[in-house]
Amino acid sequence: MANLVSQRQFTIEWGQCDPAGLVFNSRFFEFFDWGTWRLFDSALGVRPPDLADAFGIVGLPLVDASARFLAPVRFGDVVELTSQISEFRRSSFDVAHRMTVDGGLAVKGQETRVWAARDAANPAQIKAQPIPADVIARFQRA
Amino acid sequence: MANLVSQRQFTIEWGQCDPAGLVFNSRFFEFFDWGTWRLFDSALGVRPPDLADAFGIVGLPLVDASARFLAPVRFGDVVELTSQISEFRRSSFDVAHRMTVDGGLAVKGQETRVWAARDAANPAQIKAQPIPADVIARFQRA
Amino acid sequence: MANLVSQRQFTIEWGQCDPAGLVFNSRFFEFFDWGTWRLFDSALGVRPPDLADAFGIVGLPLVDASARFLAPVRFGDVVELTSQISEFRRSSFDVAHRMTVDGGLAVKGQETRVWAARDAANPAQIKAQPIPADVIARFQRA
Amino acid sequence: MANLVSQRQFTIEWGQCDPAGLVFNSRFFEFFDWGTWRLFDSALGVRPPDLADAFGIVGLPLVDASARFLAPVRFGDVVELTSQISEFRRSSFDVAHRMTVDGGLAVKGQETRVWAARDAANPAQIKAQPIPADVIARFQRA
Repeated sequence: MANLVSQRQFTIEWGQCDPAGLVFNSRFFEFFDWGTWRLFDSALGVRPPDLADAFGIVGLPLVDASARFLAPVRFGDVVELTSQISEFRRSSFDVAHRMTVDGGLAVKGQETRVWAARDAANPAQIKAQPIPADVIARFQRA
Repeated sequence: MANLVSQRQFTIEWGQCDPAGLVFNSRFFEFFDWGTWRLFDSALGVRPPDLADAFGIVGLPLVDASARFLAPVRFGDVVELTSQISEFRRSSFDVAHRMTVDGGLAVKGQETRVWAARDAANPAQIKAQPIPADVIARFQRA
Repeated sequence: MANLVSQRQFTIEWGQCDPAGLVFNSRFFEFFDWGTWRLFDSALGVRPPDLADAFGIVGLPLVDASARFLAPVRFGDVVELTSQISEFRRSSFDVAHRMTVDGGLAVKGQETRVWAARDAANPAQIKAQPIPADVIARFQRA
Repeated sequence: MANLVSQRQFTIEWGQCDPAGLVFNSRFFEFFDWGTWRLFDSALGVRPPDLADAFGIVGLPLVDASARFLAPVRFGDVVELTSQISEFRRSSFDVAHRMTVDGGLAVKGQETRVWAARDAANPAQIKAQPIPADVIARFQRA
């Protein structure tokens, strides 16, 4: 049993690149965010703007993000982004992102996010919540 | 009596520039937005995140934006942005932005925004509201 | 004979939206830029990063951009962007952009760009050049 | 002997925040990039756009970036960003970034960058180069 993988192919735009002609680093973290929303959409069948309401959460706050830049990604490159849960813990999880250009790995990323809801005792406070087992199950494919 | 002018000086960053080494066009509209918030802060003495509550509005939705690019703005350039109301109408207003580099005009912009609040009869609806006279007065300086 | 229209459908991402939950205005100008590159790609059959070399130009510098925001565009909305030359002049041209959500027009934009090359007499200088007739012809469809 | 620290204070803008009203994660990596350029400017006394030429390098390519988000950063927050070399190696180095709001640590970041120049034997190739000792010395303060 392996984890669901979400894939998205897109072309690097002029405005995503810096004076060196390469994707400016912050854009990759934007792409990773795209990948995570899409992965949850695929797994749970809930459109991203409806995710919070559907599960009684406030969202999936990011607590940690990192990227390793292995090869340059340039204006006009067709990239493939794959996103996959690498680990579920009680109330947090890791998403692994890989971006390839022409099949070669160019960027590896990881996000750690929290399954977070308003605290029943104090709604101004956000609190990590146990991730429901049936949510986790839907990220696994036969 | 002239209108209050808000000024801000800043340096163009690497990540704001495109492969031609020039500020990518969308960034100027981001800078204009900075200028409008700062202008309201200066005129009304209310921090941007408190503006909506202080005046019972939902914000200042943008209905029109334009820019004229007269001279290139480059990585490392020290720019001066000035923002000023060019016209108040009943429930909308225009903000004129000018960006200079070394005293030379590089970009001219204009935004049209609306003084907007929730409709009392239908709170899901946003409606333009008359701009209070004392708000307008505070943008005029002796 | 009508002008070629380039179309692109995409979904609005979380990171493209502001605290009001709407696409932040500068992002539309980024989308317009996507549309113009794609339009030239469709018409000329040249990948965007190869455009400058293929035609001996430095690019298509923007001299004017504007947008009219008619209806809100939200996180998760599926938008359709159409881009089309609205006028060719001797050495500049206008691109008209329209963005719809569920078939309703949400944003109208216009860019004015220049067909620009290095000045033969002074290569440090960029100069507008006459747009070749066969370039213009390729934007027209039977 | 401690390492030079570069500091910058700025206010979080509307367009830097997401629908949760918090700074969108990719923006922090943009801020870190600001911090690194400013740190080099302070240490070496060379304006960022002149850095490559002054030292015969192509720039400071990023090979790794990470951030830990400890507390929310909101629209209107006044943040202080401090950036400091945490380690110099032969041809690469780490920059540690810390962002505080009202004195409380909100975000920690780290970048690993390379001192990179064109390969003399093959100028199309970029190669890591030993960081000159006098460059390193200038990041140390008495």
